[in-house]
Amino acid sequence: MIIHDWATGPYPARVRIALAEKGLAGQVRFRSVDLFKGEHKRPEFLAKNYSGTLPVLELPDGAFIAECTAITQYLDTLAGPPTLTGATPREAGMIHMMNKRAELEVLDPISVYFHHATPGLGPDVELYQNPEWGLRQRDKALRGMRYFDQVLRGRPFVAGDAFSMADIALIGGMIFAEIVKLPIPEGCDALQEWHGRMQARPSVRNRVTLSG
Amino acid sequence: MIIHDWATGPYPARVRIALAEKGLAGQVRFRSVDLFKGEHKRPEFLAKNYSGTLPVLELPDGAFIAECTAITQYLDTLAGPPTLTGATPREAGMIHMMNKRAELEVLDPISVYFHHATPGLGPDVELYQNPEWGLRQRDKALRGMRYFDQVLRGRPFVAGDAFSMADIALIGGMIFAEIVKLPIPEGCDALQEWHGRMQARPSVRNRVTLSG
Repeated sequence: MIIHDWATGPYPARVRIALAEKGLAGQVRFRSVDLFKGEHKRPEFLAKNYSGTLPVLELPDGAFIAECTAITQYLDTLAGPPTLTGATPREAGMIHMMNKRAELEVLDPISVYFHHATPGLGPDVELYQNPEWGLRQRDKALRGMRYFDQVLRGRPFVAGDAFSMADIALIGGMIFAEIVKLPIPEGCDALQEWHGRMQARPSVRNRVTLSG
Repeated sequence: MIIHDWATGPYPARVRIALAEKGLAGQVRFRSVDLFKGEHKRPEFLAKNYSGTLPVLELPDGAFIAECTAITQYLDTLAGPPTLTGATPREAGMIHMMNKRAELEVLDPISVYFHHATPGLGPDVELYQNPEWGLRQRDKALRGMRYFDQVLRGRPFVAGDAFSMADIALIGGMIFAEIVKLPIPEGCDALQEWHGRMQARPSVRNRVTLSG
């Protein structure tokens, strides 16, 4: 299998962390797609993923699976524990909900902020920017962090008692927050504590240098 | 189980269609949340779903599962065929990818267009609008329809040879397109043909009057 990604990207991080958690890193090769050169917006890459986003998983038969949630769902079945997408229907439902919520309320808004209200990937790649929308999304992400702080006051992981895909999505958000220098709001002690625990995990710590 | 939704909403339609496809409508009651009164943005509802979106599934023990993908993933395990989220890991990966792509490229952009560049739910609910962003999203959705037309030239359903959650997500997009009077672009014959087939399905045709 081949992972098309960019080693330091927040979305690529999600799949790299999933691979490491599942012990599957040895089964993939990484192929770099240079975000800052806009390689992900060129026809050659768009043929692999219409949406022009990273990462993309290429299967041995040449099929492509894009979107972190879809890739994680697939990878989760290739090896044993830990289960990242839930062992029971109820767990799967909760994990998918919190995974989507972490995208919707933290990770995706920070991405929009980056691409629309900061220089983003530079003028050659950011052909249209809407700064007002970008700033609104930054504020949404900060509210999102406060929400997840409340969640994490009641349980050790984002979707319950076990580490899951939902934690990985929020870690993606925190990685992007660091890139755009958006600190965790004051008083979000539970989010801060969780963040420290996540950063200590080998899958998170070693993600950039992960090799197949 | 209780479904909190609004009968004619495009996102609620996704779960109503899933319920009908699975033969599970008899196992739920529907509770109406009035979008045009902004009931989905009030604290009472936000306690059920932080993101303030419909639909939400309430389980018998009082737990809430929000987000269409998460709800569908859960419902899919409660009854036998058809399988909406994939019978093999590879199918699951492809379905989750195409489901997300239908959201990202058609359904969600039309929703943003509706809320930002049309009167949307009215001035009492639409407290902030960014018309320029809304219009960009409308154009994105039209490009997305052309993409799905290409996909459907090669296979009968969005994610392959069988009806799935990914078809439902795109149906949600087409329902929203009708509400905002965004026609399928000229020449998208495969998308048009698929759309006709989908509208003929009882799960789609009877979704608004579905009762538990």
